[in-house]
Amino acid sequence: MPAALAATAADFAAAAHLLVDFNREYDDPAPEPAWLADRLAALSAAGDTSVLLTGEPPLGVAVLRFRENLWQPVLEAYLAELYVAPQHRGRGLGTALLDEVIAHARSRGAGYLDLNTSEDDLAARHLYDKRGFDCHEGRGSGPLAVYYELDLG
Amino acid sequence: MPAALAATAADFAAAAHLLVDFNREYDDPAPEPAWLADRLAALSAAGDTSVLLTGEPPLGVAVLRFRENLWQPVLEAYLAELYVAPQHRGRGLGTALLDEVIAHARSRGAGYLDLNTSEDDLAARHLYDKRGFDCHEGRGSGPLAVYYELDLG
Repeated sequence: MPAALAATAADFAAAAHLLVDFNREYDDPAPEPAWLADRLAALSAAGDTSVLLTGEPPLGVAVLRFRENLWQPVLEAYLAELYVAPQHRGRGLGTALLDEVIAHARSRGAGYLDLNTSEDDLAARHLYDKRGFDCHEGRGSGPLAVYYELDLG
Repeated sequence: MPAALAATAADFAAAAHLLVDFNREYDDPAPEPAWLADRLAALSAAGDTSVLLTGEPPLGVAVLRFRENLWQPVLEAYLAELYVAPQHRGRGLGTALLDEVIAHARSRGAGYLDLNTSEDDLAARHLYDKRGFDCHEGRGSGPLAVYYELDLG
């Protein structure tokens, strides 16, 4: 079945549970699922966030963020999260969900879609490469594009 | 002199000229400066963008984008552009401007600041390293964090 845009409280609760599982899988800190469900609902209502769910019950989730691009009169889309429950991997669900993410970003008028991943996450990188994402400056043969963060807390 | 937040039409025009020069230096496409000045002013007025200028006349510019973080009730900040005119490099202007960027992001309540750069831009990477930015998953000793883009045009 195709992915669906989260719209109800039950959708956001399911998305929050998957995302909290995702963070626990990678030992990242995670908020309470109930808090995260409310956060996802509020950001979606505010208009800059789309949450996509796949499976019934939901087995995968993607979160996109949108904003106006600086350089052109279009939106830019950022794929903040993409997750399939571990026991359901290897069946193409991630690829199908990414295809829905791309179609959704296009349908909202985004000129490009970007994301960050880990150099050693070969499964994720293979998936992004397969769909035409590029991680090189100037595309193709340029140097690698590197993502930096500074904690301000 | 410290960096100042762009606020007037003249400020946005100066920022646009520097940013167009930046893109031309790297052979990236650039819009008309007048269009970009209006765009920067509109995005700044909408609240999700801050443009910082340094020098009189302006010799450097930084553009920050802000949005609500998914995981915590804080803003996240993205350093979209940081540029010092070529003939004024090597005098610490970039470091001083980055320090103002960090202070500004903190003053708006951002929990973190992120950016992308090219693996071979050693001057930029040295600057970000010096101020504590990290480009590894899990920080420090983890694998490199890689930035991917997909053109939807």
